[in-house]
Amino acid sequence: MITLFKNARILTFKDDQIIQGELAVTDQRISFIGEHYDGQTPDRIIDCEGNLLMPGFKDAHAHTAMVFARSKADDLSLHDWLYDTIFPMEARFESNDIYHLTKLGILEYLTSGITAAFDMYFHVPEIVRASEEMGFRSVILATSDSEPISLLRERFLTLNKENSLVSYRLGIHAEYTTKPERIKAVADLAKELHTQTYTHVGETLDEVNGCIKRYGKTPLSYLVSQGFFANGGGGFHCNYFTDEEIELCKKLGIYVVTNPGSNVKLASGIAPLVKYQKAGVKLAIGTDGAASNNSLDMFKEMYLASVLQKVSLKDAAAMDGFDVLKMATVGSAHCMGLKDCDVLDVNKYADIIMIDLQNPAMQPINNIKKNIVYAGSKDIVKMTMINGKILYYDHKFYVDQPIQEIYENAQRITDRLGKNI
Amino acid sequence: MITLFKNARILTFKDDQIIQGELAVTDQRISFIGEHYDGQTPDRIIDCEGNLLMPGFKDAHAHTAMVFARSKADDLSLHDWLYDTIFPMEARFESNDIYHLTKLGILEYLTSGITAAFDMYFHVPEIVRASEEMGFRSVILATSDSEPISLLRERFLTLNKENSLVSYRLGIHAEYTTKPERIKAVADLAKELHTQTYTHVGETLDEVNGCIKRYGKTPLSYLVSQGFFANGGGGFHCNYFTDEEIELCKKLGIYVVTNPGSNVKLASGIAPLVKYQKAGVKLAIGTDGAASNNSLDMFKEMYLASVLQKVSLKDAAAMDGFDVLKMATVGSAHCMGLKDCDVLDVNKYADIIMIDLQNPAMQPINNIKKNIVYAGSKDIVKMTMINGKILYYDHKFYVDQPIQEIYENAQRITDRLGKNI
Repeated sequence: MITLFKNARILTFKDDQIIQGELAVTDQRISFIGEHYDGQTPDRIIDCEGNLLMPGFKDAHAHTAMVFARSKADDLSLHDWLYDTIFPMEARFESNDIYHLTKLGILEYLTSGITAAFDMYFHVPEIVRASEEMGFRSVILATSDSEPISLLRERFLTLNKENSLVSYRLGIHAEYTTKPERIKAVADLAKELHTQTYTHVGETLDEVNGCIKRYGKTPLSYLVSQGFFANGGGGFHCNYFTDEEIELCKKLGIYVVTNPGSNVKLASGIAPLVKYQKAGVKLAIGTDGAASNNSLDMFKEMYLASVLQKVSLKDAAAMDGFDVLKMATVGSAHCMGLKDCDVLDVNKYADIIMIDLQNPAMQPINNIKKNIVYAGSKDIVKMTMINGKILYYDHKFYVDQPIQEIYENAQRITDRLGKNI
Repeated sequence: MITLFKNARILTFKDDQIIQGELAVTDQRISFIGEHYDGQTPDRIIDCEGNLLMPGFKDAHAHTAMVFARSKADDLSLHDWLYDTIFPMEARFESNDIYHLTKLGILEYLTSGITAAFDMYFHVPEIVRASEEMGFRSVILATSDSEPISLLRERFLTLNKENSLVSYRLGIHAEYTTKPERIKAVADLAKELHTQTYTHVGETLDEVNGCIKRYGKTPLSYLVSQGFFANGGGGFHCNYFTDEEIELCKKLGIYVVTNPGSNVKLASGIAPLVKYQKAGVKLAIGTDGAASNNSLDMFKEMYLASVLQKVSLKDAAAMDGFDVLKMATVGSAHCMGLKDCDVLDVNKYADIIMIDLQNPAMQPINNIKKNIVYAGSKDIVKMTMINGKILYYDHKFYVDQPIQEIYENAQRITDRLGKNI
């Protein structure tokens, strides 16, 4: 199956340039990028009419199935939100709930041009099934303490196959929710498998102060002292790092994954991204879950990742828009270990989005790359293609699943989970 | 012409409830809201399929034609942005530029469910023509110092007609750009005409300090001392008000119009909305111009109006989402003097939007009113109707103007204005 995109602007992210030309996809992979395609006759030709092709956004921190709690507990304090709403609802999960809810979350990713998510949640087999059935790329980060280390090892070895939509990484939920033995055991497994580790870290001041009280160290420093992050990896949120921790990130290759939408809604704080960037720390962007956001929208996150720096530093020149666009694509892809769909290039997986430059928010055309960050919204996503398959085009879904059924299942589950609220 | 909306959720804003029912529009006005319509046979029936009808958003501060500078000067300091980019471009305006550019801005309003804008810019007749041809509701606030007071009086008396899409208000650009004689003259005219006045005020600390230096007073206090705001009105931005100025707002009925998107991108500051709200000051929301935003998107502004309060006050419970929705609709309408399209009710102008609850960001349905603020985007606008006419439906425009021509004209003008950059 060959799809040829003609008359396109193309931002490959191999460099910073937008080129004019054609792009061909053969089965799952990109087979041509250049001025004029003259290979095998394509099965399908799409006239881009000058619209922009670029790599899909990679959501470097998410809890996809948490869509059930979207707008269940807005405008509450962090404590009331977590203990009175989220935890009681999660305690009522039944078999297949996460499978159904994950499918709803994936629909929303597609509307925002997100082609892969780093999904930290329970019930790994259900997430695998939902991703594969929807045709979505998931990097799963399972952090359930009750699962034996041997299961994590087995999953790591079986799920990380070539040509699979799904891959698997190691991590823990957070220092404050994980026993020291478990932290050590996961760190040891990561060393054995020569792989990265990931966790929530430095999200709130309460968390930082609690860790100091427990271990006499700030969270990232403590985790590193336990062998965690020995092969790099990533921290989620990272609003409160000491200078020593910033140095550790740089030295060990730990990505800072910022989640500004969740952090401002829950009043957790503003990550000092400009400071991290100046120190040479690698940056990625995630949406967090819909429980705390409430949306799974990379345009919102990119915009906030820039403007919160400007307003908090009182400097309109702080945080370049194009740097943010790179974080949400190549940066997040590399953080998640996705090396085969990071940029647009021959033989890379065809995880491609088309940005509608005919949307009034993108007119007139002055600086396309920055304007995606400052004026973009889900409304400018014309196409989302994953693994060579168009799953969303002109605001319509082309997944092999009935949309109404996904909505009905999610509503039924949500109503049951929230019955006592 | 009768349009009947069936199977709708309806948020009228006469109270806080969402009702299920039907809504009929006869010509320009709403003719029925209730459980079941049994009037004259409608010419057109629209099945809302459970989607939400609500009043359109009112953009209480805008410079519509400034779309020409969208993404022309991102990531620059306020000074470089204004003096090296915006002013030189504006100096090159030719006849009809504002007419063409305003039409592009209106297209974007429609995609965001904005049915009226408070448009502060030059060349009033061009704005009038663009609004009328596009079918858009504009409240024009002309602040060109070179226009004689007699012209302002004449326009006020001729443009503020019953059944007109266009209306006209009095104001000045700002204290720091207006001579004292002019401030006084506009204030006197407003007293003569028993009407409100509007201006940029308290946007930056530089402005405040400059005013103290010039007149020994902060800007709002100075303006009031000159008779400005004698019949109320509104201030745009209002990031820096003293306690005395907050009292003046309350006493004189001066609306605070917040523009958070512009303020964070230009690093001007965060308006203390919770403080204003607690003091009893009336609040409205605007987008400012695309030069500094870069979008004309009420969803972005509403979201920021809430979350910037939460994160700056370190309180996730600060600023209720539904309060913000009210500001962007009824609040802004009243600030702009729009009494006939503020809520959905019989005999009000049919300025109505339909929110797509079948969009994944709105599923499952938990709290529709808050979720519009926290997970909404242009992508959930299914319909924008102004004065009984559907101008936007399912991501397509139904204006009596060729879209491609609007884009081409705006690009041609923008390229000419920015030729030396």
